[in-house]
Amino acid sequence: MPSLTVFKGTSDGSIKQSKTEKPELSGDQVLLKVTASGLCGTDLHYRHADMALGHEGVGVVEEVGPQAKYMKKGDRVGWGYEHDCCGHCQQCLTGRETFCAERAMYGYADLDQGSFAHHAIWREAFLFKIPDNLSDEAAAPLQCGGATVFNALHMYDTQSTETVGIIGIGGLGHLAIQFAAKMGCRVIVLSSTDKKKDEAMKLGAHEFVATKGAKELKVSRPLDRLLVCTSAQPQWDLLMPIMAPGATIYPLTVAEGDFAIPYMSLLLGGITIQGSLVASRYVHQRMLDFAALHNIAPIVEKFPMTEEGITEAMAKLDKGDMRYRGVLVPQ
Amino acid sequence: MPSLTVFKGTSDGSIKQSKTEKPELSGDQVLLKVTASGLCGTDLHYRHADMALGHEGVGVVEEVGPQAKYMKKGDRVGWGYEHDCCGHCQQCLTGRETFCAERAMYGYADLDQGSFAHHAIWREAFLFKIPDNLSDEAAAPLQCGGATVFNALHMYDTQSTETVGIIGIGGLGHLAIQFAAKMGCRVIVLSSTDKKKDEAMKLGAHEFVATKGAKELKVSRPLDRLLVCTSAQPQWDLLMPIMAPGATIYPLTVAEGDFAIPYMSLLLGGITIQGSLVASRYVHQRMLDFAALHNIAPIVEKFPMTEEGITEAMAKLDKGDMRYRGVLVPQ
Repeated sequence: MPSLTVFKGTSDGSIKQSKTEKPELSGDQVLLKVTASGLCGTDLHYRHADMALGHEGVGVVEEVGPQAKYMKKGDRVGWGYEHDCCGHCQQCLTGRETFCAERAMYGYADLDQGSFAHHAIWREAFLFKIPDNLSDEAAAPLQCGGATVFNALHMYDTQSTETVGIIGIGGLGHLAIQFAAKMGCRVIVLSSTDKKKDEAMKLGAHEFVATKGAKELKVSRPLDRLLVCTSAQPQWDLLMPIMAPGATIYPLTVAEGDFAIPYMSLLLGGITIQGSLVASRYVHQRMLDFAALHNIAPIVEKFPMTEEGITEAMAKLDKGDMRYRGVLVPQ
Repeated sequence: MPSLTVFKGTSDGSIKQSKTEKPELSGDQVLLKVTASGLCGTDLHYRHADMALGHEGVGVVEEVGPQAKYMKKGDRVGWGYEHDCCGHCQQCLTGRETFCAERAMYGYADLDQGSFAHHAIWREAFLFKIPDNLSDEAAAPLQCGGATVFNALHMYDTQSTETVGIIGIGGLGHLAIQFAAKMGCRVIVLSSTDKKKDEAMKLGAHEFVATKGAKELKVSRPLDRLLVCTSAQPQWDLLMPIMAPGATIYPLTVAEGDFAIPYMSLLLGGITIQGSLVASRYVHQRMLDFAALHNIAPIVEKFPMTEEGITEAMAKLDKGDMRYRGVLVPQ
């Protein structure tokens, strides 16, 4: 049986090139040749697991299964965090299949498949055509990072007249600035120091606030939305006073333990805390179309899709030095 | 100058009958003769403050100020937590004046006026006509308790096909059961023991779950909404597994410190935590109309509107023995 090259985590956290069997394609499965993969914080979490890593894939269709209907050889497609869902529950039927009880997600399903690979096998139903003017390297980080920030804004009805705060300028935050700005929102960026100010303003921010050591934050408008893109939880006592009444806060990064926020500020401000998770397929496709229309693209650093390249990229991400998304490219 | 009798908190927490000046009515002020007042947990919080207590008032109009337009002598009206607002900000203009930055609220404004009183002076704009088939004693606890639970359901678009969980059967919870049931929702009540089961079912609950000592909760449907009406924060590890994807959780009681909830359950379930606060005026009026149409009424224990009566009622509430809302009635 032929085999596919994938890159897996191992118990000691090192990255190992490995072979996975290539079965005969069944159902709507599609064989993809990987052309680029983003590197996300979640991949770091799984580097100790015996599984193929990567969930920000872009590639070209090489072969389609017997029931594939919409993709053909040569199509350029992307794929992300969600592998499958049941298709018949209330969540699936209302376009919220990321919350399907039987969803198959990265880290839990198809552990022999990933986008840190030379090839991948994926259900056609969970692939997204990439608009022509998005390059492979630009499209890859949109498959999870872009989907996550776009979904938070789009699925919960952000209006263009709103003020959107974005705290933390990394893989997620630097995409959130672009999406929110192109949606017409006033964008206020919060970051620990002024170091990323110029870049944030170039990406579309209207204001920039350095938070380190501040006793009080000054903004021109209270924030209707706040996307929390920092890896550590922010200082809520500093942030709550700049939230608008009825504002929505989205914790978007992965964290252990509890989410904790001042109780009475939550009530007295009529604040919404909104759990949000990547994007359902219809939102994902809209995100790609919106990015293509408005020339939204991540700022990336490229690494070779090899054990060494992945290891180097992960080390840089882990240190917080990536500007702003690592992309792995097969040689 | 004539004077009004009110009951105030004192530094040692005892209740003191007191006189407050009755000025000439100005603007849209209305003089009310109090006929009933509910007793709410918030009144316990303010019993050490030098202020007139009570914010679940019902009374009869005795006199109207020069600019009052809609009320006349003899009208039966209610009033609650909010005294005033600016009338020109975005919150006020969109029917969310409880979040107006200049809102005048119980505990912060008009400290010489309250519903633990024989009379009160109030702006006409913040009074609500009581439908005929609601008695004074029934209408009083709706002015804050009823408004709080109805607002959580109504303002955030609860649909009749949803399953509503209510945890904690007290002043708020026993009203929430009735409102949710009459909205057509499936109502699942959670309480520490079976003690209040019969009463909860009579009030309209469809299921009852005793939580004390449970390792796992069994419900026929996951909860689309959860109204938290307990004074202590509930055990989230027990509750999160019975929340539906995209469910909304409302912390409705007053608490110090942080609101804390398991972080990854929040994200993976797409859960909404919704801060909510009494009701804006249009919602308050709809609540009264809805209660009147569906014969929704609190179960009350009556106490005389005297120093002794208030003291006794507060002690009972403080011990958690009130079934389910105390109402003070002038003799």
